[in-house]
Amino acid sequence: MRDVAVIGVGINKWGELWEKSLRDIFVEAALLAMDDAGVDHIDSLYVGSMTPGLFIGQEHLGSLLADYLGQCPIPAARVESACASGGLAVRMGWMEVALGVSDIVMVGGVEKMLDVDGAGATYALATAADQEWECFNGATFPGLYAMIANAYQAKHNIPFDKFRKQLAQVAVKNHANGLLNPNAQYQMKVTAEQVMNSTMIADPLRLLDCSPITDGAAAAILCPLEMAKSAFKKHPPVTIIGSGAATDALALASRDDVTYLKATEVAADSAYKMAGLKPADIDFAEVHDCFTIAEICVTEALGFFDIGKGGEAATAGVTARDGAKPINPSGGLKSKGHPVGATGAAQMVEVVHQLRGDAGKRQLAKARIAMTQNMGGSGGSTVVHICKAA
Amino acid sequence: MRDVAVIGVGINKWGELWEKSLRDIFVEAALLAMDDAGVDHIDSLYVGSMTPGLFIGQEHLGSLLADYLGQCPIPAARVESACASGGLAVRMGWMEVALGVSDIVMVGGVEKMLDVDGAGATYALATAADQEWECFNGATFPGLYAMIANAYQAKHNIPFDKFRKQLAQVAVKNHANGLLNPNAQYQMKVTAEQVMNSTMIADPLRLLDCSPITDGAAAAILCPLEMAKSAFKKHPPVTIIGSGAATDALALASRDDVTYLKATEVAADSAYKMAGLKPADIDFAEVHDCFTIAEICVTEALGFFDIGKGGEAATAGVTARDGAKPINPSGGLKSKGHPVGATGAAQMVEVVHQLRGDAGKRQLAKARIAMTQNMGGSGGSTVVHICKAA
Repeated sequence: MRDVAVIGVGINKWGELWEKSLRDIFVEAALLAMDDAGVDHIDSLYVGSMTPGLFIGQEHLGSLLADYLGQCPIPAARVESACASGGLAVRMGWMEVALGVSDIVMVGGVEKMLDVDGAGATYALATAADQEWECFNGATFPGLYAMIANAYQAKHNIPFDKFRKQLAQVAVKNHANGLLNPNAQYQMKVTAEQVMNSTMIADPLRLLDCSPITDGAAAAILCPLEMAKSAFKKHPPVTIIGSGAATDALALASRDDVTYLKATEVAADSAYKMAGLKPADIDFAEVHDCFTIAEICVTEALGFFDIGKGGEAATAGVTARDGAKPINPSGGLKSKGHPVGATGAAQMVEVVHQLRGDAGKRQLAKARIAMTQNMGGSGGSTVVHICKAA
Repeated sequence: MRDVAVIGVGINKWGELWEKSLRDIFVEAALLAMDDAGVDHIDSLYVGSMTPGLFIGQEHLGSLLADYLGQCPIPAARVESACASGGLAVRMGWMEVALGVSDIVMVGGVEKMLDVDGAGATYALATAADQEWECFNGATFPGLYAMIANAYQAKHNIPFDKFRKQLAQVAVKNHANGLLNPNAQYQMKVTAEQVMNSTMIADPLRLLDCSPITDGAAAAILCPLEMAKSAFKKHPPVTIIGSGAATDALALASRDDVTYLKATEVAADSAYKMAGLKPADIDFAEVHDCFTIAEICVTEALGFFDIGKGGEAATAGVTARDGAKPINPSGGLKSKGHPVGATGAAQMVEVVHQLRGDAGKRQLAKARIAMTQNMGGSGGSTVVHICKAA
């Protein structure tokens, strides 16, 4: 198995991109990644996208985007694991380079969510849940995560006011980080009071507990580490030293404990094992904060905090940029935006900038080993990667 | 790179399966494959599906199907390359086993097409074409392949009556084969006259030139060849000795020559190179006959026949079961059915049965080396595999 390096990354400015099509925004991010790497061609492409069929009536994105990038007839595949599609693309590209089938592989993700018509974005996103057991009965993701939040509060017997502040602090912290990210959809500060007084979406989750609907893309260029060292010296290479993926039942009702993200724990364990590391070795992480409660549960499942203590870590400042375990220095899904298929690829973009030490105003003091955790649905799938500065 | 064997295959009876859901039919095929292999678990799953979001409002199939198969928390991914999604799943599984990330990997495909509501199956399928340049202007796949057919006839200056008979012979031959396949959707003989007098769909293509709308699934179990030899002795293992994938522009208008399936030629060349073989070495092939004209163009792009001579090969009986180069002994998409995401996986099912020598009434006299060719859209992507009897 060959060691795999990330030699270039690219992301466009995320937001409501009414004047650009899906292919435009992917090519924009992809060309930035190629320029960053210093490559003029790629040997293969993996693109993560959750449901371009429902959002814009376009499937077959592998070929379409390889063509618009001027790279046909290379092999190109779209991969999907709901909101973990971008992380899945990274994993597939890592395998192809590690195996030796290709040398220079682009992994990326894209979603064009604002153009949706038909039954709308909430319907399109709900296809990541169990259609027959959840959607059919009216459940959508804010409601599903609200159930997780309520179960979490009850299980850990946290007074509601205290719990409500823990949730709010996740949003406050991620918006503070996103304020420093020029590509974030919402570069704005929010206060705990603003979060707790924002519109109720699904009790206890309010508008500012939820990640937004976003148009966006991100891409990274992978190659064998040996090649990175000899041929691509523009930046210090970042090495992928762990990759893990796991699944769980889609329907919350099928899980023993809805507050326990089993797929995240199993995927992280695989990645830790491959890297020969443990949670304490991770300097910082980009994780899947589609809702504030998600970040709390995820940071526990990754082994960073004890079960039931993820919220306290947020309010104590442990997960802040200057804390002991910074989480989502990019601003996370909450502030940066959440173009679902692109999110996992964008996590890799942030991690690479931080590990290289070129993250600008967002640069963390300690950034040698990082983790990305990208999750599908309400935890039905998770892809985890561990990366190391060269 | 480890050698990879196919140790089990499964397929359900394809057709209009009103009483079964997508998860039902996939699990049915998957359990048949596990039983055939003699395994009680899998380490990873790849499932090809083109657009379950548009067909049944359900994405995130990797996790959903891993769960319904009782295999969570294994890694599971859905992959998509339009109608080549099943072939792509085979390729991803081959990579994962060859690399050594997993040992026992299920690769499969599924599509539940009959349940579609909304804009209907023709709209859902058209998302494999270029939405902005083709679908927006009213093009759907029968029309796109009709344009290919007309361009082919004109380029090769074939008298219309002769060309019309060539197209018909592809359908006649594939239905003759499908008559022997108990899992085929349309186990019925058709005559050239019936094809040529069937309802006009898109001139010159008539109803019996088109593959049908189908509910169906197929699956195969892969493992390292060494493990197959030592631990799974139920059947002689079949080895995957070549894998190739390639892309082309989705829009016909973007191609220099719409009668030339460049992605198919490039993918086949990759597979031939990996296997160290040439077209003459292939005993028989399962190819993507979504329309009769497609089989003619594909068999030329694979190097089996000279350009412009694919139709003559059909009328001369060369591609028949008892011909020199049998094509689609399973009945092909035309007779067996075309649940788009499942088709590529089903090609592997047929090839394995033929190479093992247990294809029953359909068994070919010479079956030592076989090819599968699975195509997305009007040729925008192609995945090719070459397999060998142990």
